[in-house]
Amino acid sequence: MRSITEEIIALETYALRRWCAGDPGGFLEICDGDVVYFDPFIDRRIDGLEALTDYYEAIRGKVRASRFELLDPRVRVIGDAAVLTFNFVSHGSQGDEHRWNCTEVFRRGPSGWRIIQTHWSFTRAG
Amino acid sequence: MRSITEEIIALETYALRRWCAGDPGGFLEICDGDVVYFDPFIDRRIDGLEALTDYYEAIRGKVRASRFELLDPRVRVIGDAAVLTFNFVSHGSQGDEHRWNCTEVFRRGPSGWRIIQTHWSFTRAG
Repeated sequence: MRSITEEIIALETYALRRWCAGDPGGFLEICDGDVVYFDPFIDRRIDGLEALTDYYEAIRGKVRASRFELLDPRVRVIGDAAVLTFNFVSHGSQGDEHRWNCTEVFRRGPSGWRIIQTHWSFTRAG
Repeated sequence: MRSITEEIIALETYALRRWCAGDPGGFLEICDGDVVYFDPFIDRRIDGLEALTDYYEAIRGKVRASRFELLDPRVRVIGDAAVLTFNFVSHGSQGDEHRWNCTEVFRRGPSGWRIIQTHWSFTRAG
């Protein structure tokens, strides 16, 4: 049987694989209705799955990465909450590389683990 | 009696008040030994209170903000975990303004709520 750590990392990796092929559906399918979301391109936190769906669907097909790595992913479990953190490197088809910090918080409910908080930021933006 | 939401926001606000006066001790006192940490100035996630203490103590006295605001702070409680998210605005003495995204994850233990994950990033860095 897989540990919670393995399960959470597998969920995130699968959603990222789809994300890097232009498909935000992998994330949307595992987000909680009350998800909150940060990334470097928005002016304010996005609240709720409906707003996040609008945001993600607007970039469907536009995000591409030929390969990616999760560096040193770590999961901290607290009852029905799991906090995943990792540094992320994605490689574009032009040889470009992007480095990110990521925090995902999952909650375990009747239908499994769901993301309730996502925070993506650039590593060393300054 | 205060709600958990009020208690978490009060903890964060008190630590930020000290932080903006150059004192990182407010945060260090409420961090868990296994805290993980991201901000825009580091190359990799910082793991553990000892490493975070070294990082914070190196900038003791160097951070100043004359006032700050937590915009729309939100707390999601899952058993003994609490996830605080907010946008943050700090104002320097020269009239400069800085905008941030912040996620803090707290865990309730024998000695109260402790931070197990901190993620600070610039709002709309691009």
